[in-house]
Amino acid sequence: MTGGLKNRGRTKEDVEERRKGLEEVTGAFLEHIAHTSFDPIMAEKNVENMVGCVQVPLGFVGPLLINGDHAKGEFFVPMATTEGALIASVNRGCSAISAAGGAEVLIIKDEMTRAPVFRTKGVRDSKRVVDFVNSHIQEIKAEAETTTRHGKLIKVRAFATGRSLYLRFSYDTGDAMGMNMATIATEAASRYIERETGISMVSVSGNLCVDKKPSAMNFIDGRGKIVLADVTIPKDVVEGRLRTTVDSAVETCYRKNLVGSAMAMSFGHNAHIANILAAVFIATGQDPAQVVEGSMGMTTCERSGEDLYLSVRLPSLEVGTVGGGTRLPCQKEALSLMDCVGAGKAKKFAEIVAGATLAGELSTLAAQSAGELGKAHRELGR
Amino acid sequence: MTGGLKNRGRTKEDVEERRKGLEEVTGAFLEHIAHTSFDPIMAEKNVENMVGCVQVPLGFVGPLLINGDHAKGEFFVPMATTEGALIASVNRGCSAISAAGGAEVLIIKDEMTRAPVFRTKGVRDSKRVVDFVNSHIQEIKAEAETTTRHGKLIKVRAFATGRSLYLRFSYDTGDAMGMNMATIATEAASRYIERETGISMVSVSGNLCVDKKPSAMNFIDGRGKIVLADVTIPKDVVEGRLRTTVDSAVETCYRKNLVGSAMAMSFGHNAHIANILAAVFIATGQDPAQVVEGSMGMTTCERSGEDLYLSVRLPSLEVGTVGGGTRLPCQKEALSLMDCVGAGKAKKFAEIVAGATLAGELSTLAAQSAGELGKAHRELGR
Amino acid sequence: MTGGLKNRGRTKEDVEERRKGLEEVTGAFLEHIAHTSFDPIMAEKNVENMVGCVQVPLGFVGPLLINGDHAKGEFFVPMATTEGALIASVNRGCSAISAAGGAEVLIIKDEMTRAPVFRTKGVRDSKRVVDFVNSHIQEIKAEAETTTRHGKLIKVRAFATGRSLYLRFSYDTGDAMGMNMATIATEAASRYIERETGISMVSVSGNLCVDKKPSAMNFIDGRGKIVLADVTIPKDVVEGRLRTTVDSAVETCYRKNLVGSAMAMSFGHNAHIANILAAVFIATGQDPAQVVEGSMGMTTCERSGEDLYLSVRLPSLEVGTVGGGTRLPCQKEALSLMDCVGAGKAKKFAEIVAGATLAGELSTLAAQSAGELGKAHRELGR
Amino acid sequence: MTGGLKNRGRTKEDVEERRKGLEEVTGAFLEHIAHTSFDPIMAEKNVENMVGCVQVPLGFVGPLLINGDHAKGEFFVPMATTEGALIASVNRGCSAISAAGGAEVLIIKDEMTRAPVFRTKGVRDSKRVVDFVNSHIQEIKAEAETTTRHGKLIKVRAFATGRSLYLRFSYDTGDAMGMNMATIATEAASRYIERETGISMVSVSGNLCVDKKPSAMNFIDGRGKIVLADVTIPKDVVEGRLRTTVDSAVETCYRKNLVGSAMAMSFGHNAHIANILAAVFIATGQDPAQVVEGSMGMTTCERSGEDLYLSVRLPSLEVGTVGGGTRLPCQKEALSLMDCVGAGKAKKFAEIVAGATLAGELSTLAAQSAGELGKAHRELGR
Repeated sequence: MTGGLKNRGRTKEDVEERRKGLEEVTGAFLEHIAHTSFDPIMAEKNVENMVGCVQVPLGFVGPLLINGDHAKGEFFVPMATTEGALIASVNRGCSAISAAGGAEVLIIKDEMTRAPVFRTKGVRDSKRVVDFVNSHIQEIKAEAETTTRHGKLIKVRAFATGRSLYLRFSYDTGDAMGMNMATIATEAASRYIERETGISMVSVSGNLCVDKKPSAMNFIDGRGKIVLADVTIPKDVVEGRLRTTVDSAVETCYRKNLVGSAMAMSFGHNAHIANILAAVFIATGQDPAQVVEGSMGMTTCERSGEDLYLSVRLPSLEVGTVGGGTRLPCQKEALSLMDCVGAGKAKKFAEIVAGATLAGELSTLAAQSAGELGKAHRELGR
Repeated sequence: MTGGLKNRGRTKEDVEERRKGLEEVTGAFLEHIAHTSFDPIMAEKNVENMVGCVQVPLGFVGPLLINGDHAKGEFFVPMATTEGALIASVNRGCSAISAAGGAEVLIIKDEMTRAPVFRTKGVRDSKRVVDFVNSHIQEIKAEAETTTRHGKLIKVRAFATGRSLYLRFSYDTGDAMGMNMATIATEAASRYIERETGISMVSVSGNLCVDKKPSAMNFIDGRGKIVLADVTIPKDVVEGRLRTTVDSAVETCYRKNLVGSAMAMSFGHNAHIANILAAVFIATGQDPAQVVEGSMGMTTCERSGEDLYLSVRLPSLEVGTVGGGTRLPCQKEALSLMDCVGAGKAKKFAEIVAGATLAGELSTLAAQSAGELGKAHRELGR
Repeated sequence: MTGGLKNRGRTKEDVEERRKGLEEVTGAFLEHIAHTSFDPIMAEKNVENMVGCVQVPLGFVGPLLINGDHAKGEFFVPMATTEGALIASVNRGCSAISAAGGAEVLIIKDEMTRAPVFRTKGVRDSKRVVDFVNSHIQEIKAEAETTTRHGKLIKVRAFATGRSLYLRFSYDTGDAMGMNMATIATEAASRYIERETGISMVSVSGNLCVDKKPSAMNFIDGRGKIVLADVTIPKDVVEGRLRTTVDSAVETCYRKNLVGSAMAMSFGHNAHIANILAAVFIATGQDPAQVVEGSMGMTTCERSGEDLYLSVRLPSLEVGTVGGGTRLPCQKEALSLMDCVGAGKAKKFAEIVAGATLAGELSTLAAQSAGELGKAHRELGR
Repeated sequence: MTGGLKNRGRTKEDVEERRKGLEEVTGAFLEHIAHTSFDPIMAEKNVENMVGCVQVPLGFVGPLLINGDHAKGEFFVPMATTEGALIASVNRGCSAISAAGGAEVLIIKDEMTRAPVFRTKGVRDSKRVVDFVNSHIQEIKAEAETTTRHGKLIKVRAFATGRSLYLRFSYDTGDAMGMNMATIATEAASRYIERETGISMVSVSGNLCVDKKPSAMNFIDGRGKIVLADVTIPKDVVEGRLRTTVDSAVETCYRKNLVGSAMAMSFGHNAHIANILAAVFIATGQDPAQVVEGSMGMTTCERSGEDLYLSVRLPSLEVGTVGGGTRLPCQKEALSLMDCVGAGKAKKFAEIVAGATLAGELSTLAAQSAGELGKAHRELGR
């Protein structure tokens, strides 16, 4: 193997050497991937074995009028995607929502979790440890918080079965998505529990966290932010801009999102929330694998007098405006479009994202109820 | 609003004008987003309202030795990510798998689905339509295939409840991921069914497809490719390269992926398959929202004599090597690293992706069983 | 311990001796349990360690008008229960359905399953065995059917992951519920597969059967009979006999059975189907633990012009009219009320049961929508 | 129709007249059903339209040694069943557990729930009501408790989506299973909430309770009692009495209860807990439809040195020793076998039931791992 492949550096020169090594060994020519606008050293905490960047086309939707507790006003939302018709569709939804006076959005819970699994001697031993945890929650909190300036332990919830004991730690992680913070704090707290109780931690993640897997645990208890959004679209906007009727939209939502998802035993009662999340997540440096949790959203439609009531519930929206990919140049620029760069912006950003999913759901339900989905893809996406 | 925001064009000039309009209205400065290496017209089927690109850092893992039916030999797998430590971890898994003689990978099913929902008069009427569909499957196939050169209708499966009838169409879509192809073909077939039976299609997607939502339907029946992969890692590789023991890895997998996921009522019995899928999908122009289905994978570990047996089952891997984002310059280059550009390569690509998830699972289970997860993130990812 | 506890006999004398032994050792006095009307030897295939019988109060609902493929006309349905208000409520539903012209009921699938799990060497070995099964299905069928006069093997469906291979055998079991028949036939077929392929069966039930556990597998694929039922209740019946309105009933069904069940991540989208099944199962000698599968039913309501459309989908109704508890005197008498004793009656019986669940759902949804649930329990059930 | 069918009385004479009417109209002869040992008036709160009783054969298992917090010592557990081989199998498990020193059993949560659904104006309105509930929890508790002497409101948990607001009320219901108590108390509290906030209750049960449907809500949060049980079976008991090996039992549990249930997307990771629950519930006058929730139990096996560790987790065991069917003569006698009649006994009874499920799981896993399941049914059950 060529030397370039093995270099461990993160500088521009290292990246170039490694890319050349990779080109040599594979015979590929990475002209566009090489075309990076920033010094790779800026990404040293984000990637290893870097050889360049992949450019994902970036568009936007908006203005989208949002009446949130943190986001108030009109926003332009960046979306990075390769799926034709997606942005056009969401944009149509934004236009309808804005015409309707904007989306109401609120965050009803905000906790990042990590759940190690411990091995105990059995159910009575598990009970002993749970009692210890409940009676030493202040000490556990102190241990956890030695590792972090921003993270605050909120609670620890125990789940026991056989010789496996799961402790689900919930944190306030400020403006960071917070998973690494939660992992490190939980590890420290768990070492304390191990020392004091004599049990062993088998894994710092016991899959009750639940990270990047669909789960009832997160759907019911939330992970990251639980966000609710709704809007009432006047009949004339439904019929004009959205080219459908209130009854058709309601019926589509009923047969598709509720009955259809139930028949599929799906954990997601929505049209395509994951699409909007994926595009915004990639644009803004969020963790795109956490689209999984976001995909469990629920969308409901109801007739409201003559008009169309539409809501989205996101049970597990894991986003941040500091840390992770938000530090990178393009991603930071994308966040700056919404004035969501850095500290004090995570809740605002979450509300905007929720508003965008509402727009996406509205437009797709309208299109499907009007029989236009295939047509849209024929025209824009092939 | 400035004119740039409203322009509808897709040329380089249009994109620049629109970006300037967006900068003006938001006050943001999109220097890095502007830094696009290709003519935006190349992305006209992939995005609307384009203002540039987001650059996602690209690294790679490998060589990864794969013994597939379509992928044979050593591969370097591109991953676009902003999550520090991910590539290093997967790479360690690749190294262990290759040292163990490579991963066995095979595809056991390959069908793309789309499931419209129809309104019927009730259960007897639904039965009448199902009987019609079963007795006219050739006509339905002919109608569907008028719309596509590559797609072949394989079967139609009916699910009825009350006045809702779902017909799940399954297609061979060749080397395309195939969702748009399936949508358009299904729409044509559904119009035929509407005409012949008098029932009405309410939506071309009735959520039994199931696209971008976690679902038992896809887990059990598959969507896209069902791929299986496994490997037996010799004890010395487990203890040396992976710094854990066979028993620890097996116990971690048991308490986390099986018992833990069961306790969380999760639809994903794995450590972090979604991470690997997201990074490879973004690198190669796949649809990143379909990571959702991929996240339902199952990872098992067993002791095999002195060694560690590890397997991954991906019930719904939706990938292609033609169409969608695979046409874009960077993404095509990424595919070219594995010789997976264009026709005749989708199955090979799917096998490589599955092999990469196996590597990712191996490394993370090893790290968690060795108590290293927090440490890895402290060192590489903060 | 007294001798009576240890006797192994099944005669009247044995049962009395054992009951006296049990009374002696526990100090209990089993006067009513002793009061059995039939010779215990009749139950020798149904119970061990018999000491008498428990008497469960038996009532009935009806007449219930059913327009089935097998059940046609008015029926009185026996229900054994200790839950006050249940029979009164279901009876009200029967009256409304009959007034509406009866329930349409049809069976769309009828297969009993058993799914052994085998240990293989890994994914390629599993593939080899699946190929063997598919190419030797006639031989496997012949082996299975050597064990039974009535059972017919319909198909074998394979599910592979890692070193575990599940083969789901589906049978036509005639008028028997058929689980024992399926178990014995599958065991024979599995021994053949073991011999021919060299793999080992780990358990004749690998939990993909899925017996007496809630599961997506049975919900999607069915086990026993998939039965659909519906009815349209005229507005005046809704408002008169059911004391609610069409809109209230529809809204209750929507917020409770669809949205509520989705929010609870429930596998049952109904009000209380399990109640009706449990009562009819106990009355007629069915296996009451199979109420579990039945509880996954789906109930939908829609406005139909001025009237109320109501449907039930039972994805997994496992009933029989021969074998098991149907042989016992009281249970046979209960079946005789519907002319459902013995051969040729299982489908008819299944349709009547489905009709009764429709009645139960209708009445409870009406009561809840009218705010009467607490009142009913206060008056009848405390 | 004959007069007997329409009589509304509950006396012995009424029941006989009604039975004769039913015989007349159906042509059936209900000789054994007529054979009731008690005055029907005793069942007037348990059944309507009574025509007699169905006799379900009653056997028992035991002695079963239990080391609970409430149940301590050897118990004989009554089981009413028509499934041959069931009691013999559970009894073998009891014998093995007792030989191993008994089962550890403990209750970790005990709350009965009821969750009405309310219609609100949207997400902000729901938030307003949730804030009201949280700040008026004492008033709500007082309203709820006006309706009951025994029930205590523990907490109210809110779940909001769109215009639907679910409030999950949790109660301590003493020795009653408590569902009716919870319903009536919740109705009173809900009327207060309606008056004070102006929103409307759509249904006193919004399916987040979750009664008689499988659900993640109950699995995660519990309903009724969450009970844990475990035992370590010495190697010689496993090989002698149970005729299998520790490794075989562990492997069967792994491939069946964990991997198999995961592959089936089942909410029950056990062998046949529902069987034991159904038989004990019918014997003792519990609500047999609540076997559904009980069926979501989890059974795990692990090697423990040379021995076999086995555990059961019952997430939702809804039982009582007062009220409901426990008042009836046979059922009370069955409870008296365990000294579980009346007040102060519900927790003891729950522990015994959990111990019995452990016995049932042990025996079936042993039998399946030894390849004996088909054989047992051939010999005892056909």
